[in-house]
Amino acid sequence: MPPRTRIHAVILAGGAGERFWPASRRRHPKPLLRVLGDRSLLEATALRARGFSDDLWLVCGSEHAAPMRRALGLPAARVLVEPSRRNTAMAVGLAATRIAAEDPDAIVAVLPADHHISDSRAFARDMRRAARAARDAGVLVTLGVSPTRPDTGYGYIQSGTAAGPRYPGLRKVRRFVEKPDAARARRYVRSGGYLWNAGIFVWTAATILEEIRTHMPGLHRALAPVRAAGRRPTRAALARAYARAPSAPIDTGVMEKSRRVWTLPVTWGWSDVGTWQALAEEAGVGPGASRALRGDLVHDDRGGNLVWGQAGKPIALIGVEGLAVVDTGDALLVTRLEDSDTLRDVVRALKQAGLDDLT
Amino acid sequence: MPPRTRIHAVILAGGAGERFWPASRRRHPKPLLRVLGDRSLLEATALRARGFSDDLWLVCGSEHAAPMRRALGLPAARVLVEPSRRNTAMAVGLAATRIAAEDPDAIVAVLPADHHISDSRAFARDMRRAARAARDAGVLVTLGVSPTRPDTGYGYIQSGTAAGPRYPGLRKVRRFVEKPDAARARRYVRSGGYLWNAGIFVWTAATILEEIRTHMPGLHRALAPVRAAGRRPTRAALARAYARAPSAPIDTGVMEKSRRVWTLPVTWGWSDVGTWQALAEEAGVGPGASRALRGDLVHDDRGGNLVWGQAGKPIALIGVEGLAVVDTGDALLVTRLEDSDTLRDVVRALKQAGLDDLT
Repeated sequence: MPPRTRIHAVILAGGAGERFWPASRRRHPKPLLRVLGDRSLLEATALRARGFSDDLWLVCGSEHAAPMRRALGLPAARVLVEPSRRNTAMAVGLAATRIAAEDPDAIVAVLPADHHISDSRAFARDMRRAARAARDAGVLVTLGVSPTRPDTGYGYIQSGTAAGPRYPGLRKVRRFVEKPDAARARRYVRSGGYLWNAGIFVWTAATILEEIRTHMPGLHRALAPVRAAGRRPTRAALARAYARAPSAPIDTGVMEKSRRVWTLPVTWGWSDVGTWQALAEEAGVGPGASRALRGDLVHDDRGGNLVWGQAGKPIALIGVEGLAVVDTGDALLVTRLEDSDTLRDVVRALKQAGLDDLT
Repeated sequence: MPPRTRIHAVILAGGAGERFWPASRRRHPKPLLRVLGDRSLLEATALRARGFSDDLWLVCGSEHAAPMRRALGLPAARVLVEPSRRNTAMAVGLAATRIAAEDPDAIVAVLPADHHISDSRAFARDMRRAARAARDAGVLVTLGVSPTRPDTGYGYIQSGTAAGPRYPGLRKVRRFVEKPDAARARRYVRSGGYLWNAGIFVWTAATILEEIRTHMPGLHRALAPVRAAGRRPTRAALARAYARAPSAPIDTGVMEKSRRVWTLPVTWGWSDVGTWQALAEEAGVGPGASRALRGDLVHDDRGGNLVWGQAGKPIALIGVEGLAVVDTGDALLVTRLEDSDTLRDVVRALKQAGLDDLT
């Protein structure tokens, strides 16, 4: 990729992860969970990022900065600590501003900290391809995952014409579609022209900052203290910036408005591991097949269940299928996998009911 | 009931209670559980027995003798400790032999330690009525519960002709039927001539010992060391007796063979609380209505679930109904209530698999 341009990988780890209760908690959020295998989702994300980047950055909340930084072995200067939660547009703007101060030609890849990707090598190859397009064409690239089922939990991207022979695989984006209903989701999957919006982005720092200035002027203004701080954004500068920052996702704030958005359709397995059901799929739970990610499943006559138990505590399931059984020692969840997307509402209700220490 | 005859109430607490795992364990069997209300099933049984008897006896295994005796406040002489488990015929024979040594005219009421009865006053009235018949007609009386559903988990009694005007309510027994299949159970309930065999018996010590001698001569012979020991059956005498005793229920050993068996049909609510499903019914679990007997059920959108949790540990149920969720801290069971009668097999399989310390 001459001329040499560094890809900075920004890991966004500021989410609440309410849909993974009770395994995920405010103090121990989803990116820190070892859900599949020996690595936490955060560690696996960083490992994947190192496949195409030597410059890792982490954006996270102050309560998680220490354990997350420790987990990744990052220098303090590479950890951008958000004083409050302002959704992804602000996190993206903060990272791009900070990186531009160090490397004005930087390419920035944005990676959610809690996704699961099956093929790290193919992923790195696609990220490099997206990076070339982002640099050479000055576009915002969003990775689009070929949908394998009419999922109503994801946003969709309608892809348009090919970006041209210089950018193999890349396509223009016709439009973004928010989470559709089941009938529309089925139509999208059948049509073949729609992709899942995975929330993985590649752009240059210069391009995204320009687009923020155009489409989110309030956010641009809020970032002024960070711009002024250059390579050393103090806690006070961040506090001033966050006090004024709007709370919006980068998707609705910029991507849906920008005229220069491309997508790179990818075919490797991807999941946002956003629900117990999604995790069950990744873990290989299916009809008749259960999986205990931890704990000691001593009996399960039907199968098709996901178990997340306690070490040394036997679990017996009788006559049940399609359930997630999650025992964290201090809380217990039993949910039908199909209904596990309502968990977020349950956790919010618990918070509202004053059961804040459970969440 | 002149002439004055004492009713001795014998509480049988030697069962394994495998169908209540993981709440019931070898060290903490079902009679010691506080399943409904503040009293253990054993304590509730004793309280009911005191409604018609001043002479309580307890038959139990050696590992439970101390806590059970403590729970009931019985003198040591009233606790008959079985050196090994030999089913109910031996327990009944032991108790009758011991009681006869003290009170040759004794009437003996046999009460399982782990049943639930809704109306203690009506129960005591019926026990006295059965006792009169047992004494005056020299019969074995078994209480028959009017079936409220075609349960396939109970044995049935086909009742015959009325016992006569001197014994209001009592009927002769035509035959005993072992647990029927669903079709036969429905026929029995429809016919009106069948009763559940509750395992609650009344007889004189003399009558039951005679019938044991006739129908279970091996058991009669095994009881010889106990007979010889009179009012002080030593541990050695019991050991000799139990070493020779056959293992059989009193139902098949004597009741099904004897020609002098009557039944007293009763109408109060009765349950052997033999499964999580049976407990759920007693606890008022029904369509849409859940019940947490312990623990903190913070969310349950469908209802119809029975929860047995841990104090201070929140439990959330999403999209599930008709389940029992039992968390004892050191083990976890999730079972469809309808399938909870298979739990016994599960626990046996655990034992066979060498997971003996779980049971």
